[in-house]
Amino acid sequence: MAKRIGTRTILLEKPPKIIGYGSAVGHLEHEGPLGKEFDFYSNDCRFGEKSFEKAESRLQKTALEHAFRRAGVTPAEVDAVFAGDLLNQCIGSSFGLRELGIPFVGLYGACSTMTLALTMAALTIESGAAETTAAVTSSHFCSAERQYRFPLEYGCVRPQTAQHTVTGSGALILGSSDADKPKITAITVGEIKDFGVKDANNMGAAMAPGAADTLLHYFEDTGTAPDDYDVIYTGDLGAVGTELLYQLLDKDGVDLRCKHSDCGLIIYDRDRQDVHSGGSGCGCSASVLASFVLHRFESGDFHNILFLSTGALLSPTSTLQGESIPTVAHLIRICTD
Amino acid sequence: MAKRIGTRTILLEKPPKIIGYGSAVGHLEHEGPLGKEFDFYSNDCRFGEKSFEKAESRLQKTALEHAFRRAGVTPAEVDAVFAGDLLNQCIGSSFGLRELGIPFVGLYGACSTMTLALTMAALTIESGAAETTAAVTSSHFCSAERQYRFPLEYGCVRPQTAQHTVTGSGALILGSSDADKPKITAITVGEIKDFGVKDANNMGAAMAPGAADTLLHYFEDTGTAPDDYDVIYTGDLGAVGTELLYQLLDKDGVDLRCKHSDCGLIIYDRDRQDVHSGGSGCGCSASVLASFVLHRFESGDFHNILFLSTGALLSPTSTLQGESIPTVAHLIRICTD
Repeated sequence: MAKRIGTRTILLEKPPKIIGYGSAVGHLEHEGPLGKEFDFYSNDCRFGEKSFEKAESRLQKTALEHAFRRAGVTPAEVDAVFAGDLLNQCIGSSFGLRELGIPFVGLYGACSTMTLALTMAALTIESGAAETTAAVTSSHFCSAERQYRFPLEYGCVRPQTAQHTVTGSGALILGSSDADKPKITAITVGEIKDFGVKDANNMGAAMAPGAADTLLHYFEDTGTAPDDYDVIYTGDLGAVGTELLYQLLDKDGVDLRCKHSDCGLIIYDRDRQDVHSGGSGCGCSASVLASFVLHRFESGDFHNILFLSTGALLSPTSTLQGESIPTVAHLIRICTD
Repeated sequence: MAKRIGTRTILLEKPPKIIGYGSAVGHLEHEGPLGKEFDFYSNDCRFGEKSFEKAESRLQKTALEHAFRRAGVTPAEVDAVFAGDLLNQCIGSSFGLRELGIPFVGLYGACSTMTLALTMAALTIESGAAETTAAVTSSHFCSAERQYRFPLEYGCVRPQTAQHTVTGSGALILGSSDADKPKITAITVGEIKDFGVKDANNMGAAMAPGAADTLLHYFEDTGTAPDDYDVIYTGDLGAVGTELLYQLLDKDGVDLRCKHSDCGLIIYDRDRQDVHSGGSGCGCSASVLASFVLHRFESGDFHNILFLSTGALLSPTSTLQGESIPTVAHLIRICTD
């Protein structure tokens, strides 16, 4: 049985191991600093499909296939798949996974979806309802841009606070294994925070309070501090959101600077690549986790990290109606024995 | 610990009880056969808000307030809320629940979201990670119509196979209680089924295979038959989908006719109300479950039912791109001691 500690953190009694993972990205991500870490990339932004939306479904399938391969399991051996994306009605996931024949749990947490999926995938195993589960999310620059902002052909110039949606997908398989694999030992499910930020071109600023709230709850619940971890990852705060996160945590006497890394800041080289404040999207934290981060566990560089994905729960409609941007961040602790 | 039986069904060792429920609907639903069952209705289709989308958020809040009241709990006593809706990026839920201060799990299962939310809410309790959880979903005719189909002002005439999106929300609180309350004892999480139906004005036909697949798995896994239950509810197959479900199950020798009811068929009077094939939407099964169905448990008419919500996982984009409609259905068993 899982155990709640403090107000919000959940310790898993039988922590599921990450028995497989896979990633697939586009050409910009492949040209970035983590390029060699990903399992698959293509220079074709449609990945052989007829539309950007179908390309995103293809990304999910590809990431999941690599995860199945690494885990040595077939889809039939997976008890449930937890998936989501940024597209309206989450069609990246439903169309990407419709041929799998695995019980399907659709999730929506915007860019926080990867840790949300891992949270639910881990708790479902902890409940006894499943032995092996999968979590997968994706995003695609072209499908996101035309859905959330403007047609690509318009060539809109965005402000420097804006982030570049990662074209990518990451998938993890959770289950049991005798091998020494990293495992998910703790979870903090975030609550919605809304600090009144209304600028849809500054998601980092909107999401920073969600990340700060979840981190502070976790540190308080567990009695730990940043120095207790190898690294603390956030999903996609970018340059602006990261600086705001530091400032918010400073108020509570928590200095994250020496221990923090943001997937949105490491997936691209901002000096060389035109990505403004950094990467974002469901596929950002997912593809970085399912490649670079888990490779560091394999190499022995990492033994104990916190990983948060951060989500901005807005839609183009809510923005047009003058609403502010609610955000949420979910945290998992990944460690080895 | 939960126990898996057969290929897909989960039996809960410590079945969570439904300790509270609440519902809120629009005027058409109030004028229907179940009108007196709902906790709240309004003749104002904006429910005092400035937009249909904000009205939908208001519906969720209202349903949840009634559920809290009936359960005798405060939001602070709820460990997590599981919510979703049909709007792009699920803004009905994120904006409706942003002030609650409860850890938030966003879900997307189209019209299947209510049983998906109850599934995750129940498994989270079973895992030990929570003692009390909430599940809430909503839909709104006006916000759905302009998002999925045409502006209301266009006055589009729809075919008779089309369904009318229910303006409504239903919320349930799961937890422990010494009182004799109905409980969720079994769950079957559905897989995505796609029979190639491409008509977005005939959701019932698209969703029937999903419902049939989940029901057949459940009956096979548990060794039970329709006669073992007081009633078997589907969420929103409507008249066309219900007939197709009967035909699909006939092939496997399962006759559902004498035991079946569809929330989309009982929420409106199709002879008197212009709703074509019946009701649909996330709010359809949710508001019927959180009123009429649970009232029948209180009155002692029901002791043992199966409840499925059925979802069509399409988007306007996928329809325009010529895609067929993937569907999914999740099942819960609700019974008393």
